[in-house]
Amino acid sequence: MSARRRGRLAPVSAPNPQRTIWPGDDGRTVVVIDQTRLPHVFETLDLTDLEDAAAAIETMVVRGAPLIGVTAAYGMALGLAADPSDDGVAAASARLLRTRPTAVNLAWAVRRVEEAVTALAPAARAAAAYALAGEIADEDAAMCSAIGDHGLPLVEAAWEAKGREGVVNVLTHCNAGWLATVEWGTATAPIYKAFDAGIPLHVWVDETRPRNQGASLTAWELGEKGVPHSVIVDNAGGHLMQHGMVDLCIVGSDRTTAAGDVGNKIGTYLKALAARDNGVPFYAALPSSTIDWTLRDGVAGIPIEERDPAEVTAISGMDAGGRVVEVRLTPEASPARNYAFDVTPARLVTGIITERGVAEASEEGLASLYPATT
Amino acid sequence: MSARRRGRLAPVSAPNPQRTIWPGDDGRTVVVIDQTRLPHVFETLDLTDLEDAAAAIETMVVRGAPLIGVTAAYGMALGLAADPSDDGVAAASARLLRTRPTAVNLAWAVRRVEEAVTALAPAARAAAAYALAGEIADEDAAMCSAIGDHGLPLVEAAWEAKGREGVVNVLTHCNAGWLATVEWGTATAPIYKAFDAGIPLHVWVDETRPRNQGASLTAWELGEKGVPHSVIVDNAGGHLMQHGMVDLCIVGSDRTTAAGDVGNKIGTYLKALAARDNGVPFYAALPSSTIDWTLRDGVAGIPIEERDPAEVTAISGMDAGGRVVEVRLTPEASPARNYAFDVTPARLVTGIITERGVAEASEEGLASLYPATT
Repeated sequence: MSARRRGRLAPVSAPNPQRTIWPGDDGRTVVVIDQTRLPHVFETLDLTDLEDAAAAIETMVVRGAPLIGVTAAYGMALGLAADPSDDGVAAASARLLRTRPTAVNLAWAVRRVEEAVTALAPAARAAAAYALAGEIADEDAAMCSAIGDHGLPLVEAAWEAKGREGVVNVLTHCNAGWLATVEWGTATAPIYKAFDAGIPLHVWVDETRPRNQGASLTAWELGEKGVPHSVIVDNAGGHLMQHGMVDLCIVGSDRTTAAGDVGNKIGTYLKALAARDNGVPFYAALPSSTIDWTLRDGVAGIPIEERDPAEVTAISGMDAGGRVVEVRLTPEASPARNYAFDVTPARLVTGIITERGVAEASEEGLASLYPATT
Repeated sequence: MSARRRGRLAPVSAPNPQRTIWPGDDGRTVVVIDQTRLPHVFETLDLTDLEDAAAAIETMVVRGAPLIGVTAAYGMALGLAADPSDDGVAAASARLLRTRPTAVNLAWAVRRVEEAVTALAPAARAAAAYALAGEIADEDAAMCSAIGDHGLPLVEAAWEAKGREGVVNVLTHCNAGWLATVEWGTATAPIYKAFDAGIPLHVWVDETRPRNQGASLTAWELGEKGVPHSVIVDNAGGHLMQHGMVDLCIVGSDRTTAAGDVGNKIGTYLKALAARDNGVPFYAALPSSTIDWTLRDGVAGIPIEERDPAEVTAISGMDAGGRVVEVRLTPEASPARNYAFDVTPARLVTGIITERGVAEASEEGLASLYPATT
């Protein structure tokens, strides 16, 4: 990657308000946070050409479906700045679509830019694509902000239920935060809105093995916003709920069925079971774009990706010398299996927080918010 | 520690049959496996004097209540070899009792040796203590073997229920294996007995964050015995159970109430919830010495140790250069909390496997096996 790297050692601050991607001061390039280096090192990368943008997606410098989509849209603009011809449009589109072939938002964003610029004269294409990428980013931020606005009353209700005493303890799993989107995040949006509204909060952050997105990304982004939080192992949530130390759970969703089953990071289901066993409300916060209206039974129907066992057998962290290194955790001879997601049945989900409001986790509930799509 | 270290790099084999502690060839010293170096390095330590034994307990070279007790008994013998006087007995006892003050087995074993030798002439004390330590070790091995014999029919039943097709998939959490005892282990005893009986088995090994006793110790000891297994993150068990990939769960227990509530390593409760939700039998295997007959409600009554947050924020493993190093996982500014145990209510426990048989997890069930103690 030829991208210019601007590094600082932690502790650092991201730009405010927290965004994961923003236009460069030159009005031509785009800046992203290098998420592969968090939480130990905060570095931004200036993406200056098509290849920079494609590599940022491929190497997971940017991750999270919404952020990938916006990065790809900017990638189109960077490609068209170099070659605005019809061939240039086709080449940029093809390069970006190759980066993460299964990401729905990516293809959607690339096609949207492609269609918009094809109608224009080549000389106008790069600027139009750059502006459109900014619009797509703003749309995503607005969608997440709406999720936050609709989720805020649930946190307020938990605060009222405690007689406005102490703090509201929210448990979350994985990273469905602003780092996965453009701004606000999904599961974190109600948390940030409640924090901004002055509700005293504390967030239990599941570390979320094997990739530790909670310990590395969610903890970091909550810290950046100043939200009190504690990192816990994924084993701890049940104990906390048994002892009244969790007031509500909010998680994200990678894929939601029309009946309200929630496919999310592995381990979500275990927390939902504990929430149900202890009477703790359990919400999934998600943009309606993650709802698969063709699917009802999530356990039977959502395919669960099995990933590289090396994510289980090894982990990376910062050593005493300040280097980020990978260490092996298991015996050389022991195999491992790595299921990346699980499905939480709708019966365990108290409600689904979307950009249109909070729905009951059921076919009727979701259909009442999205009547045209069902 | 002056103990003589005999190291070999993995892969290696422990002596057969697997024991964690055994008399030295000289008939005077004692040999233990250095468990702090597993799974990456297999090393035994020759404990040659009282201080060696005390340090082995303090530094967690040996861990697990039964093994700590036996090591302390041998420590008495080593101390008396140097000073068999009444003062020597008192000094050895005091030194050993200081090592891990809360370990019940330790005090019990030290007192037992103390009482036995006090009646003898000083010249006979060291040999008597050495022989008694061996007896205590054999008693523990026999107790675990009995737990295995009583648990074996449960694995056989799972095998029959599958029509003797495929393999019996057993899920376990933490390390309640032979490494925690003298031989056989508790939760692993039925597994080893079933394996020896020729039942095709596969064990899902929860890595068991934060201290990763599953990934490091259980995986290693199953591998030593040749039992097929896979390491999984603690988040994975619910997904596996939803998809019929677990036939039974067997865990250990650190403290069990008279009503059958099971206090065990943090995260056990979450697995029990998933087992119940999916109709998977969930057993706790334990010697009756862990039953606290004074306690009924485990969630209210079993105190849960909160340990050093550094166990959550950092982890150790083997780096590319073959060195065991510690790496930091979380942002510098993020706090962590570290609850070490949780309580699984009896209603989620299918049965309790003890050295006397399998009891229902209830006051009546346990009382029927142990009528004198209730």
